[in-house]
Amino acid sequence: MLRQALAYIEEHQARFVQELLEFLSIPSVSAQPEHARDVHMAAFWLAEQLRHIGLRSEVLRTGGHPLVYAEWRGQDLHAPTVLIYGHYDVQPPEPMEQWHTPPFAPELREGYIYARGASDNKGQHFAHVKAVEALLRTQGTLPVNIKFLIEGEEEIGSPSLGAFIAANADLLRCDCVLISDSAMRAPDQPTLVYGLRGLISMEVTVRCLERDVHSGHYGGLVQNPIFVLAQMLAQVKDAEGRVRIPGFYEDVRVLDDEERAALARVPYTEADLMRETGARCAFGEPEFSLVERRGARPTFEVNGIWGGYTGPGTKTVIPAEAHAKITCRLVPYQDPHKVAQRVAEYLRSITPPGATLEVRVHEGGSPAVLLERDHPAVRAAVRAATDTYHAEPIFELEGGSIPVVAHFRDQLRAPVVLLGFGLPDDNIHAPNERFSLQAYQRGIEASARFLLEMSACCAGRGA
Amino acid sequence: MLRQALAYIEEHQARFVQELLEFLSIPSVSAQPEHARDVHMAAFWLAEQLRHIGLRSEVLRTGGHPLVYAEWRGQDLHAPTVLIYGHYDVQPPEPMEQWHTPPFAPELREGYIYARGASDNKGQHFAHVKAVEALLRTQGTLPVNIKFLIEGEEEIGSPSLGAFIAANADLLRCDCVLISDSAMRAPDQPTLVYGLRGLISMEVTVRCLERDVHSGHYGGLVQNPIFVLAQMLAQVKDAEGRVRIPGFYEDVRVLDDEERAALARVPYTEADLMRETGARCAFGEPEFSLVERRGARPTFEVNGIWGGYTGPGTKTVIPAEAHAKITCRLVPYQDPHKVAQRVAEYLRSITPPGATLEVRVHEGGSPAVLLERDHPAVRAAVRAATDTYHAEPIFELEGGSIPVVAHFRDQLRAPVVLLGFGLPDDNIHAPNERFSLQAYQRGIEASARFLLEMSACCAGRGA
Repeated sequence: MLRQALAYIEEHQARFVQELLEFLSIPSVSAQPEHARDVHMAAFWLAEQLRHIGLRSEVLRTGGHPLVYAEWRGQDLHAPTVLIYGHYDVQPPEPMEQWHTPPFAPELREGYIYARGASDNKGQHFAHVKAVEALLRTQGTLPVNIKFLIEGEEEIGSPSLGAFIAANADLLRCDCVLISDSAMRAPDQPTLVYGLRGLISMEVTVRCLERDVHSGHYGGLVQNPIFVLAQMLAQVKDAEGRVRIPGFYEDVRVLDDEERAALARVPYTEADLMRETGARCAFGEPEFSLVERRGARPTFEVNGIWGGYTGPGTKTVIPAEAHAKITCRLVPYQDPHKVAQRVAEYLRSITPPGATLEVRVHEGGSPAVLLERDHPAVRAAVRAATDTYHAEPIFELEGGSIPVVAHFRDQLRAPVVLLGFGLPDDNIHAPNERFSLQAYQRGIEASARFLLEMSACCAGRGA
Repeated sequence: MLRQALAYIEEHQARFVQELLEFLSIPSVSAQPEHARDVHMAAFWLAEQLRHIGLRSEVLRTGGHPLVYAEWRGQDLHAPTVLIYGHYDVQPPEPMEQWHTPPFAPELREGYIYARGASDNKGQHFAHVKAVEALLRTQGTLPVNIKFLIEGEEEIGSPSLGAFIAANADLLRCDCVLISDSAMRAPDQPTLVYGLRGLISMEVTVRCLERDVHSGHYGGLVQNPIFVLAQMLAQVKDAEGRVRIPGFYEDVRVLDDEERAALARVPYTEADLMRETGARCAFGEPEFSLVERRGARPTFEVNGIWGGYTGPGTKTVIPAEAHAKITCRLVPYQDPHKVAQRVAEYLRSITPPGATLEVRVHEGGSPAVLLERDHPAVRAAVRAATDTYHAEPIFELEGGSIPVVAHFRDQLRAPVVLLGFGLPDDNIHAPNERFSLQAYQRGIEASARFLLEMSACCAGRGA
């Protein structure tokens, strides 16, 4: 069964790439209202693909962007059911001028597909679609029952998905959730993620004046909101990067010696960090290793700042207001609501006289998650990855967030397997995002192997 | 002579307004390259106006935006010559969404003309054009020789004008330079400005990474340039607004008791400041009065800041770089070059490891100026203003900058009279800029009176 599927994957490689390029050419930017129609278009395109390979599929409306749901239930009730999750929406492509080729005109270059969403997440979940196609076309059947749930709001915090899962637990019932939305440490080092950080997101506005005023007439006489915002942000972290908000670290999970030792074996150095980002050195809490800082420590980051005149030349203005977009990554045991409240309270407490502060906490905050490491489904993934990459996977804590993982675990009561196909230098959320052709190819193989392993190891509980 | 001119001004009031509206509809934004053609258009329009009322006029090319020069030399060599300076370029109109009516679709509303450039400076110098028209049309002659020099680069620091004046001192020779590019304290309180602050302008870029990266993967591991920029700006001023850059105040002119007492009589309170700007309180060096802070103290202001994602929704990015536009107002005896160097040196000295700083100091920095208060031309202005507004003018130090004043004084060796027609709540450099119809009307009258006073008091030195 495996051999024929692998041969099919090999044989149809070029077409698989072409199909992904077509998918990537749809600018499904969920955060930008002007792309709402493109987001919908991407859902239709994907649903049609899933139908075409032999699944029953549909586009489901939500309060926001639609979900794509598809299933194949040809196995009997005793066979396990695998739910594959992914997201077809993508990050905004800005800053556009830093892209070497346009973000939605996918290009093949030196073994990579360059496009917004190539790695995050179209390329990764589409690998599973192609694995299912290969198995179905060569066998006429699948080793397990399959469900796909691909959402269109991941990049804006999955506001609709939690309620959908809660309301459709029967539809989504499964023995394991498989998600490929993370990165391998290296092309030959398969990586299973057992923890994800949570996320809260907010926008703050500092206002000092009713209108923009002339910096000659009023400079030295009134507060400048840009300066106030700078002063406030500067007070949030100390010079080494520790967050100074009272209680910020209060509920943070403490790693025991065994886990710290295990994480110390993850091959990741300051040189890797510098190569990946172009940073001249690492920065952050010196009492924690890089791997610990990424996976086990919460953050406060300013993702955007703006105020006053930002066009060409000079405009001698003191603006009425200044703005910042802020996100905090959370780790296990931190409560998103409580942290957001503490951040907002702290910022209010340091707002100087003469300035007013508005804090708008975005909905869809998500807690961090910790996953099992020894479930049969995880062991199936370990075997599939070992056979595909010829190396044992390492277990890692991921710095990013997949808000929906907690919903799957808690509401479907199913183990979640996070087996990523991306690479650290895929430039996700950045200009020139890419996905390696080899990673795509091997992802399809790993997916097929996993589905076969699952049929051997797990009994179904009735999908 | 005066009576007929005043009657003409009264009679043609409506047309004078219509002509100004037409002038204001040309978006002559000197800072924005996409408006270069509009800037040129405004020069042609104004030159044609000056020709039409009976002056010899021309549009002179410079390395940047053109100058409008016009003259009337019908008086003999013994009559004095008045050079009137102004600028037909305007500030960028952004932020557009805060305008009640479009900035370049001038509108009459409740006694005001609303448009970008209405007060700064089209309305003010056009009042002089109309005064000259009234005198010429009613008398067939003027009481003095007249030269107009109206530039198109004031809002970008007059980069071409200094060299033009130096190279054309003969052409521009005069007995007095009259400039109306400032504000009266109140509609009935004529105000003569005897000092202007200087200006330096720069743009800084903080760079920590080679590319934007995902704030989940790298948050807590690398420096965030927005945070670095905020930290650096926060270190420039203390909590009360004193600039902490070493040597920043070193050369600042110290006011003696007599001048402080005179400035204390300028009617300007915190309540005025709050009404004009919407500030909830004043802010700045507590050891100086508001009037002293505006006129006699240098500033460091951030006019714009930007970095990362600033669109709708959330983008979980750590940007590669962040930027700020900075201007410093200077007071007498400060050297622009030296101050710029000190600011740049200080910012470099506080740049943390892991970040690089680029400081680009814009050309066209200008020193502050102090003007004579008892020259015959100043006394002519006092009489003209007293007769027009039925109140004695006060002498004030202006917070803004007119870089060219120093050039006129130094290179033409002529006294400069700064008699403004604007009002403090004209919203110059801000949305909803406006110019009062009454101020326009009285400005025309004051200009005509001044030219007549000049013919009586000053002997010409051969224009």
